[in-house]
Amino acid sequence: MGNLAVSYAGAGKVELIDTPYPEFELKDGPGVHPANIGRQVHHGVILKTIATNICGSDQHMVRGRTTAPEGLVLGHEITGEVVEVGRDVEFLKVGDVVSVPFNISCGRCRNCKTGQTGICLNVNPDRPGSAYGYVDMGGWVGGQAEYVLVPYADWNALKFPDRDQAMEKILDLTMLSDIFPTGYHGAIGAGVTVGSTVYVAGAGPVGIAAATSAQLLGAAVVIVGDLNEDRLAQARAMGCETVNVALGDPAEQIEQILGVPEVDCAIDAVGFEARGHGHGAATEQPATVLNSIMEITRAGGSLGIPGLYVTGDPGAVDEAAKVGSLSMRFGLGWAKSHTFVTGQCPVMKYHRGLMNAILNDKVSIAKNVNATAISLQDAPKGYAEFDSGVAKKFVLDPHGLIGA
Amino acid sequence: MGNLAVSYAGAGKVELIDTPYPEFELKDGPGVHPANIGRQVHHGVILKTIATNICGSDQHMVRGRTTAPEGLVLGHEITGEVVEVGRDVEFLKVGDVVSVPFNISCGRCRNCKTGQTGICLNVNPDRPGSAYGYVDMGGWVGGQAEYVLVPYADWNALKFPDRDQAMEKILDLTMLSDIFPTGYHGAIGAGVTVGSTVYVAGAGPVGIAAATSAQLLGAAVVIVGDLNEDRLAQARAMGCETVNVALGDPAEQIEQILGVPEVDCAIDAVGFEARGHGHGAATEQPATVLNSIMEITRAGGSLGIPGLYVTGDPGAVDEAAKVGSLSMRFGLGWAKSHTFVTGQCPVMKYHRGLMNAILNDKVSIAKNVNATAISLQDAPKGYAEFDSGVAKKFVLDPHGLIGA
Amino acid sequence: MGNLAVSYAGAGKVELIDTPYPEFELKDGPGVHPANIGRQVHHGVILKTIATNICGSDQHMVRGRTTAPEGLVLGHEITGEVVEVGRDVEFLKVGDVVSVPFNISCGRCRNCKTGQTGICLNVNPDRPGSAYGYVDMGGWVGGQAEYVLVPYADWNALKFPDRDQAMEKILDLTMLSDIFPTGYHGAIGAGVTVGSTVYVAGAGPVGIAAATSAQLLGAAVVIVGDLNEDRLAQARAMGCETVNVALGDPAEQIEQILGVPEVDCAIDAVGFEARGHGHGAATEQPATVLNSIMEITRAGGSLGIPGLYVTGDPGAVDEAAKVGSLSMRFGLGWAKSHTFVTGQCPVMKYHRGLMNAILNDKVSIAKNVNATAISLQDAPKGYAEFDSGVAKKFVLDPHGLIGA
Amino acid sequence: MGNLAVSYAGAGKVELIDTPYPEFELKDGPGVHPANIGRQVHHGVILKTIATNICGSDQHMVRGRTTAPEGLVLGHEITGEVVEVGRDVEFLKVGDVVSVPFNISCGRCRNCKTGQTGICLNVNPDRPGSAYGYVDMGGWVGGQAEYVLVPYADWNALKFPDRDQAMEKILDLTMLSDIFPTGYHGAIGAGVTVGSTVYVAGAGPVGIAAATSAQLLGAAVVIVGDLNEDRLAQARAMGCETVNVALGDPAEQIEQILGVPEVDCAIDAVGFEARGHGHGAATEQPATVLNSIMEITRAGGSLGIPGLYVTGDPGAVDEAAKVGSLSMRFGLGWAKSHTFVTGQCPVMKYHRGLMNAILNDKVSIAKNVNATAISLQDAPKGYAEFDSGVAKKFVLDPHGLIGA
Repeated sequence: MGNLAVSYAGAGKVELIDTPYPEFELKDGPGVHPANIGRQVHHGVILKTIATNICGSDQHMVRGRTTAPEGLVLGHEITGEVVEVGRDVEFLKVGDVVSVPFNISCGRCRNCKTGQTGICLNVNPDRPGSAYGYVDMGGWVGGQAEYVLVPYADWNALKFPDRDQAMEKILDLTMLSDIFPTGYHGAIGAGVTVGSTVYVAGAGPVGIAAATSAQLLGAAVVIVGDLNEDRLAQARAMGCETVNVALGDPAEQIEQILGVPEVDCAIDAVGFEARGHGHGAATEQPATVLNSIMEITRAGGSLGIPGLYVTGDPGAVDEAAKVGSLSMRFGLGWAKSHTFVTGQCPVMKYHRGLMNAILNDKVSIAKNVNATAISLQDAPKGYAEFDSGVAKKFVLDPHGLIGA
Repeated sequence: MGNLAVSYAGAGKVELIDTPYPEFELKDGPGVHPANIGRQVHHGVILKTIATNICGSDQHMVRGRTTAPEGLVLGHEITGEVVEVGRDVEFLKVGDVVSVPFNISCGRCRNCKTGQTGICLNVNPDRPGSAYGYVDMGGWVGGQAEYVLVPYADWNALKFPDRDQAMEKILDLTMLSDIFPTGYHGAIGAGVTVGSTVYVAGAGPVGIAAATSAQLLGAAVVIVGDLNEDRLAQARAMGCETVNVALGDPAEQIEQILGVPEVDCAIDAVGFEARGHGHGAATEQPATVLNSIMEITRAGGSLGIPGLYVTGDPGAVDEAAKVGSLSMRFGLGWAKSHTFVTGQCPVMKYHRGLMNAILNDKVSIAKNVNATAISLQDAPKGYAEFDSGVAKKFVLDPHGLIGA
Repeated sequence: MGNLAVSYAGAGKVELIDTPYPEFELKDGPGVHPANIGRQVHHGVILKTIATNICGSDQHMVRGRTTAPEGLVLGHEITGEVVEVGRDVEFLKVGDVVSVPFNISCGRCRNCKTGQTGICLNVNPDRPGSAYGYVDMGGWVGGQAEYVLVPYADWNALKFPDRDQAMEKILDLTMLSDIFPTGYHGAIGAGVTVGSTVYVAGAGPVGIAAATSAQLLGAAVVIVGDLNEDRLAQARAMGCETVNVALGDPAEQIEQILGVPEVDCAIDAVGFEARGHGHGAATEQPATVLNSIMEITRAGGSLGIPGLYVTGDPGAVDEAAKVGSLSMRFGLGWAKSHTFVTGQCPVMKYHRGLMNAILNDKVSIAKNVNATAISLQDAPKGYAEFDSGVAKKFVLDPHGLIGA
Repeated sequence: MGNLAVSYAGAGKVELIDTPYPEFELKDGPGVHPANIGRQVHHGVILKTIATNICGSDQHMVRGRTTAPEGLVLGHEITGEVVEVGRDVEFLKVGDVVSVPFNISCGRCRNCKTGQTGICLNVNPDRPGSAYGYVDMGGWVGGQAEYVLVPYADWNALKFPDRDQAMEKILDLTMLSDIFPTGYHGAIGAGVTVGSTVYVAGAGPVGIAAATSAQLLGAAVVIVGDLNEDRLAQARAMGCETVNVALGDPAEQIEQILGVPEVDCAIDAVGFEARGHGHGAATEQPATVLNSIMEITRAGGSLGIPGLYVTGDPGAVDEAAKVGSLSMRFGLGWAKSHTFVTGQCPVMKYHRGLMNAILNDKVSIAKNVNATAISLQDAPKGYAEFDSGVAKKFVLDPHGLIGA
């Protein structure tokens, strides 16, 4: 039995390849950490993938900005049906439909015990934190495939209460594996609450998810900034105000909207591949968003930073950025008593509550991000189109279960 | 009636000058913001200064690193006896002995209402946040003087329960106006709790106060790093472990102490005038401490940053630092899901609890920082000696009430 | 110049009386604490009352369940225009339109400094906490009148950003003085967050405000329980599920709605005048709601209890309840690790955020509670009608400014 | 291979019995829930018990106040050495010395994922929450035995970093399985922080642990109340103030100590077997402590209630108490805006930090509670002596490893 999968095939290229059907053991393969080879995974389940999304962070690899090896199977946004359970699994059974947090975590280490599943100590021999199908994350095989192994499944997987109900809302529920919690984590980090004014830098799927989360949390006004007019139109369609950062610094445009050049809370949904604002918009300026949100966030505010910043970036614009150093106006943040909340979202903290909001019709994340189902075979096209900046979130449908 | 005061007299110089006895109005003078001239202060009290300390942040001005005007009366660490009350004061009376937070705040604005007194909106026409005797902080006259005006006194002042008890502990209690809460704020921001391992960068008075606070909060191990052996000896005397950063990066020395090269919590009690570690120790490298604490703090940890970072630094080593930009390894912090807590300490949040700890003999902050009373006349000597790096905290005693 | 006002005239009676126009001093009068007579209020403003609502807690007095003296001017839900400012007021001016928290607080005591304005230490000589027009609360004159004195106005009053905008939304904004924050406080105390299932005991105005708040906070399902079908219909109209407690214990009905007999969070918006459930519904059983919410709240949940419980209740059904003792199944709550959050809502914590939500059309509190403006002269009718259990919140309009 | 164990032998009696050596399966036996019989425990480890303490909550059973069946093996305070690991255990190995939280939890359910291990949903078929050797807790065999099975061991067990170091401090470390975290949880629930004044009701081991925790958290003054002069002497020896509640209500005595009749924080370390104060001290009055701490805790304070309250108490003094109903002055708590924090301590939240405090000599819990090692054979004597009210905490030493 085979397992068709999407893999990285060198800078700018993804392709479909045949891979082995998963077993309850982590086998050698592209990107697998030596210390993980042969690791027994009796605590895992094998999922038949129902939906698995293309993520902006996959693009960092596909663009060749990382040391990802060719042949790496991509995909860390996974929703599926349990088709096999490992011998140590106790609370899941065949037929369950589950959402899988992109962070792999063990449920046994000090960090997992406090809910910090984004920095689990036991799954990645290199450093705290792991993910499926991602460079330097331990080598767990990606989920843009027909089948995928999910370790520590009793701990990691979120079971949907009802299969039929889940299939009806599957385009919303598939966002629980990463972007919806990630955007929500940004909003929580930024301190968004009832009545807040919020600025979200970036109108890609994570930015839209952050804006959606801010609305769900009761924000009074949500302003989204980007260079891409299609994406800004999408933000407006869901009731946000927008700022086109190609036209200049956000502060002035924010003042036109709010009457003051400041917001209560700001979220960086862009990360290290940021471009400049105004005339500088054509060039990459990795600290642009960070410096901008320090400027526009009121004194005492918090900055939620789910956007990815890296420890090394071989393709960076300058030597400092290559080792992850950014020229930050940290003194400005300090003078304003800002708090900076960084890092991977610990999905498990949030996915149950967000699932309940979806299942009870309190939020339309699929519509907001323009979720678009395509076949697994169309993944290469999906990657190319997403990279061009379309205002769509592509959902791969390996078994034709969601009508792609 | 006059009012002898310590004033800034140009780079490297402080001197005693005669100034007018305070009235319930903010008069024009060096550094007073035009919008504050003539401001009525019927909500204020006039204090006879019992103790007023020389602070490391005063030194930034005295070294000529700021735009402080000559003639500015220095001093924001104030403890005194009420000798006059404004007509609008309701809960203080003549004879009360009080501690004054270095942050001036109104007790009426949005930020004060949530306890963020370090960024009060109503006392400094330039920006949120204010202080006595400090450049760009609105022009409120400093307290290194015989008498000082304290505005919004019902809100700002912390009354000691008993005068005699207060005088017995005055060298401890005088630390409540700034460094003890500031160090404590660093420890809180760093998430110090029972059983934590803690690294404090800097063994000056704020660093020692942070270390003291970490102990008071139940830390298991407190490690203090500095270049100055006298100050490190002081840290050891109070039960801390120490790291001499002149000998190299702290990680290795921390590993020798703890068995791992990481701590749970880190506090930056140095700020923008940081020097390099190891061989680089001779030169100023403003991001050294920030980058170092990202390296040595465990994933998921918090960084408490009470050390001052500025929005502009005319005397900085490079162009970027002159506008407050630092080259930070922000990607490292992000990969470790760090939270950065910055800004002035809102003293009011903490001073009552710390006072109770002092009055009930739970902490010996005066001893730990080596509080040393000197006369007001000796202030210039005190400044010079402090600048040389002695392990002392100088307490000015304008009326000879504490036996200097 | 006179000041027409609504006053308590003995059990079951309210009437309009002429009272003196306020001065910046608290004069003697019905219910004024001796220690407050003659208190200077230069920190106050005089408001021309725009809207002042009849509250369920007023009814406790009007029903004769308290020791309220005849002649007491009622009213603690106050919105108005500043017509005079005391000499010590700095940040309000004539013409400002403001909302006044029903809790009077000084902004200078230990509790106010931490935002606990519901238990201010300086305004009520009897105990922590105060309110306008209420028995045993210090004697501050009520606001169901043409004019009212608001002490510590720079601290207490929330200024609306724009007068015209405020007048357009005045029926919503008037709920900021009490019931909207009170309901919200219940929801916060109960731990309501995105995706929660919530039970609100009581469909009176506070219950509806709690349900509205739960929705605003992102609750997945909000279930409201009451005996009164009109009020339950109102809850359904705003998108809540409902439970008629006259038909039996809520657990069974909740199971029909949710599939489980438990909710994540529960709010007691009833208080000590609770009636039994099912067949017991005809009689007063003061611990009914408390015991019920322990039963239906999941282990680990919190109980938000904004409903009023009293220290003494002369008209209670039994001797224990007369001294405020209730027969509580506390062991059940303990076994489920419940947290009980009690007390007056500190309005100031919430009113700004809720105002912003109203002004930006995120919530329709006036519609939800069926806000109904009537003239001051119609107050007695309003009290009677409200007491009969109509699904309306009466807003008095002393100057005809809101079209009653 | 046998397994000598301490078992309940009817009201007032415990005895040593021979029991089978544990296997990785939960077998039938006294008190084992039918649904748990035959449960596979491959995730478990078998411990050779190093230390296992007699707990006050064991006494409820031994006194015959519960429905505990004869033959039940007692003991939920367990520290031991791993001698066998189940096939699914990944992070523990033979020879590790570990502390075991008294709460058994699965590490896979919704509650465990948020750290609420005291109300785990998967280990007790009757209700959320479980424990070893305890009535109605699912039937997991107690640890007052030579060997004991610990389920979900990777999740539950806290490994000590070094065996020799652990054995040196074993009398302190054995308190990590229950009373130290339980007392600490009470202090956290009560909001104890630096500078707090704290009242602890009860000077038994949990009360002393709460007092110790309050000191560790930086409390300014800790006052312990009890009827038992030996236990009060123990509290004084560790630096606490004391109140003898046989002499009257605590408020007056507290006033003599603090100058005010109130504390900031109160902890109920007594629970439902409380006796009256003053002349009522001879009789059981289950709500005495709850009502007392409402009286003496300042408005706005929190009440930490680790003392056990039960849902049913067949031996109670009156009908109401038999079904767990208490006559509480809840209106008093409400008027003071108290928060009540109840329930079993989730040990896992605290044991690591407390372990670090012990290992780094920051706290002397063994000395404070007067830890006294005795042999397993002496358990019956220990129970009897403890029941008589001696100021000792008995530690059973089944293998003579701690020199009993």
